[in-house]
Amino acid sequence: MSDPLRLGIAGLGTVGAGVVKIVRQKAALLAERTGRPVTISAVSARHRDADRGVSLSDYAWEDDPVQLAGRDDIDVFVELMGGSDGPAKAATEAALRAGKDVVTANKAMLAHNGQALAELAEEQGRVLRFEAAVAGGIPVIKALTEGLAGNEITRVMGVMNGTCNYILTRMESAGLTYDEAFAEADGLGYLEADPELDVGGIDAGHKLSLLAAIAYGTQVAFDSVELEGIGKISIDDIRQASDMGFKIKLLGVSRMTGRGLEQRMAPCLVPATSPLGQLDGGTNMVVIEGDQVGQIVMRGAGAGEGPTASAVMGDVMDIARGTRLSTFGQPASSLRAATAAKSATPAPFYLRMSLVDKPGALAKIATVLGEVGISIDRMRQYGHSEGAAPVLIVTHKSARDALDRALEAMADTGVLASDPVVLRIEEV
Amino acid sequence: MSDPLRLGIAGLGTVGAGVVKIVRQKAALLAERTGRPVTISAVSARHRDADRGVSLSDYAWEDDPVQLAGRDDIDVFVELMGGSDGPAKAATEAALRAGKDVVTANKAMLAHNGQALAELAEEQGRVLRFEAAVAGGIPVIKALTEGLAGNEITRVMGVMNGTCNYILTRMESAGLTYDEAFAEADGLGYLEADPELDVGGIDAGHKLSLLAAIAYGTQVAFDSVELEGIGKISIDDIRQASDMGFKIKLLGVSRMTGRGLEQRMAPCLVPATSPLGQLDGGTNMVVIEGDQVGQIVMRGAGAGEGPTASAVMGDVMDIARGTRLSTFGQPASSLRAATAAKSATPAPFYLRMSLVDKPGALAKIATVLGEVGISIDRMRQYGHSEGAAPVLIVTHKSARDALDRALEAMADTGVLASDPVVLRIEEV
Repeated sequence: MSDPLRLGIAGLGTVGAGVVKIVRQKAALLAERTGRPVTISAVSARHRDADRGVSLSDYAWEDDPVQLAGRDDIDVFVELMGGSDGPAKAATEAALRAGKDVVTANKAMLAHNGQALAELAEEQGRVLRFEAAVAGGIPVIKALTEGLAGNEITRVMGVMNGTCNYILTRMESAGLTYDEAFAEADGLGYLEADPELDVGGIDAGHKLSLLAAIAYGTQVAFDSVELEGIGKISIDDIRQASDMGFKIKLLGVSRMTGRGLEQRMAPCLVPATSPLGQLDGGTNMVVIEGDQVGQIVMRGAGAGEGPTASAVMGDVMDIARGTRLSTFGQPASSLRAATAAKSATPAPFYLRMSLVDKPGALAKIATVLGEVGISIDRMRQYGHSEGAAPVLIVTHKSARDALDRALEAMADTGVLASDPVVLRIEEV
Repeated sequence: MSDPLRLGIAGLGTVGAGVVKIVRQKAALLAERTGRPVTISAVSARHRDADRGVSLSDYAWEDDPVQLAGRDDIDVFVELMGGSDGPAKAATEAALRAGKDVVTANKAMLAHNGQALAELAEEQGRVLRFEAAVAGGIPVIKALTEGLAGNEITRVMGVMNGTCNYILTRMESAGLTYDEAFAEADGLGYLEADPELDVGGIDAGHKLSLLAAIAYGTQVAFDSVELEGIGKISIDDIRQASDMGFKIKLLGVSRMTGRGLEQRMAPCLVPATSPLGQLDGGTNMVVIEGDQVGQIVMRGAGAGEGPTASAVMGDVMDIARGTRLSTFGQPASSLRAATAAKSATPAPFYLRMSLVDKPGALAKIATVLGEVGISIDRMRQYGHSEGAAPVLIVTHKSARDALDRALEAMADTGVLASDPVVLRIEEV
């Protein structure tokens, strides 16, 4: 049997502890599959004495992850600290410079620094792998980078934030308001310390930007992801959507279009009978479409100790077996800078608005839409309440920029009682 | 850029032609992703002059695939001929002996000769890859072998024969009899030359046996797959199952149990609301359960030119990138001979029987079940027709061997008007 593959693990939260458990409890299985033992030499975390449910006494301890990254007795630096910059990035860079391979679960770090880190890894002849950064236990980075490498990828979609999906599912199934469902998720510990990372779509946007880089051979472009959170979704939207056969999901979509790279993470309507529409609770789903393979759907747990540790170990096992891949599936120098194409692809839209109680209000809205060339598929006006009339419009397929012009013009009509809610209907 | 990776392709049916098209039309993309050109040196098929929708004039021609396999100007032998033995196996062996890597879509060859071929590949220091042999375009071999390599796999399930799923779906959606749906599938060209390969579960059983070898580190044991075809399923079964909230699917299930390896490819009832239950038409789905990751579901096209060629190219791209893996994910010498455990795991069962029109007939059946310790969850007796009464029984979770004893005892009671239909209800 070959030399052991020696890990140094920085960050011993849920995922880090999960990785330690797998390495300890499955030593024989891992060695059988890779032909070499997988071992841990040293670990690092903020607090040495926390009870993590697993013994660390066999491993050297480093207070400083940068020191850990450079140790002579590790081959792979496993970065599970999180944070887009700061210690995670410093230690990752130190590890690559010291000739270590790196496995990370850190979507924020890669969304902000992916290109620079991929270039550094290649300069150093090391690999930087990140299966655990996207969609938890679902081996989607591997599927996209390797399994579907013979395809031109035409679209990548995903529900990749379990917390948002939990909130939206609870609003629908239990009739909770957004605030009630948010509070419930908070009570269950589902929210990040900064909840905006979840409900603002930022965390899921990070993940989408990493998938897009692989899919289209472009440099990670998180800054050009169009982000919309779920905070504007009301129980009314959930119910109206349901009446029309749709579910509302925080859906990421990326496409390479003639105008450039389209990346959007926003609440969308999807058919209730589609796999995405049927995805309830904290589960994740990624849909990849290729010109050869058609549509591939992958579903699984998007977070949690076991699933995320499983993804980390997938990368570790690859390295143990000698698999060497470019970070984003092709040399970093060959990744093109992407031109951002905002919402280039036309779609039907769902509009919910509240009109002032004046004669001709609805006519004014319909006229504005007609003037920008948007035709209406369905329109419903509900009974007045508190001096305003709820109106629901579903458009035929429309360009987003035309819709934006219409929304501006609507604001000038003086008939809107509040800002309209605009949701894209994604064909899946 | 490195030296080209040179392919020799044997078999130019739909899939072979699809692979040629990808290599020709996506040369730049493939080279960008792997860092080296992927080219075709030579091809072979039974008929040289067939129109395959793609030019072959750039490639050398071999009438004999064994000659092709040994050519000096190929690095990878791509076996797309099919057949468990004969030319496919001879050429695969010749290629490995000549120091070529092999990519194949041939589930029958590997189900019958997987262990010997994996051993030969390792003796020769070559890789033998087969993503396209299982579930078409779904990169499930890669997910199981690599992405989930940190898991102890607890169950693998799959709907992996699109033709059977098409027939069962049409019986349900259009109310066709089995014979009518079979004829329709035949007219659409969905059936193999020997239809029993499809409707007898053999083709899907081949695939299941390959997944089990990877999942449990065992030698391929197709001979111990419990096979049941879909020919016994009647429109009544489809309707009764539907009334109770189930769909009938030709479902493969494998588990490693305390008694040994359980592998079964048989029509089963699954909850109508589960991902497996919602799988309609020719689509495939594979469900992998691991002790860390929980449940991963993968769905996509199980056949066809593009999807299958996509899977072949996934393997080719791996080889071009220098990825070297054992055929079944660990050295062939370390794969254990599996002890077959027939239906070791208890399950609820669906029984449909036809009882003779005599007083006490139903009581005799209920008594027999009680005597072997099987308790009844639901029982329905329908109106007599033609002197027999249809009876439907759903049991609580029961051991299959107890059920088999009950079935034997029922036959002795003289109250059965025909052989009962017995279907397992799989928890998914």
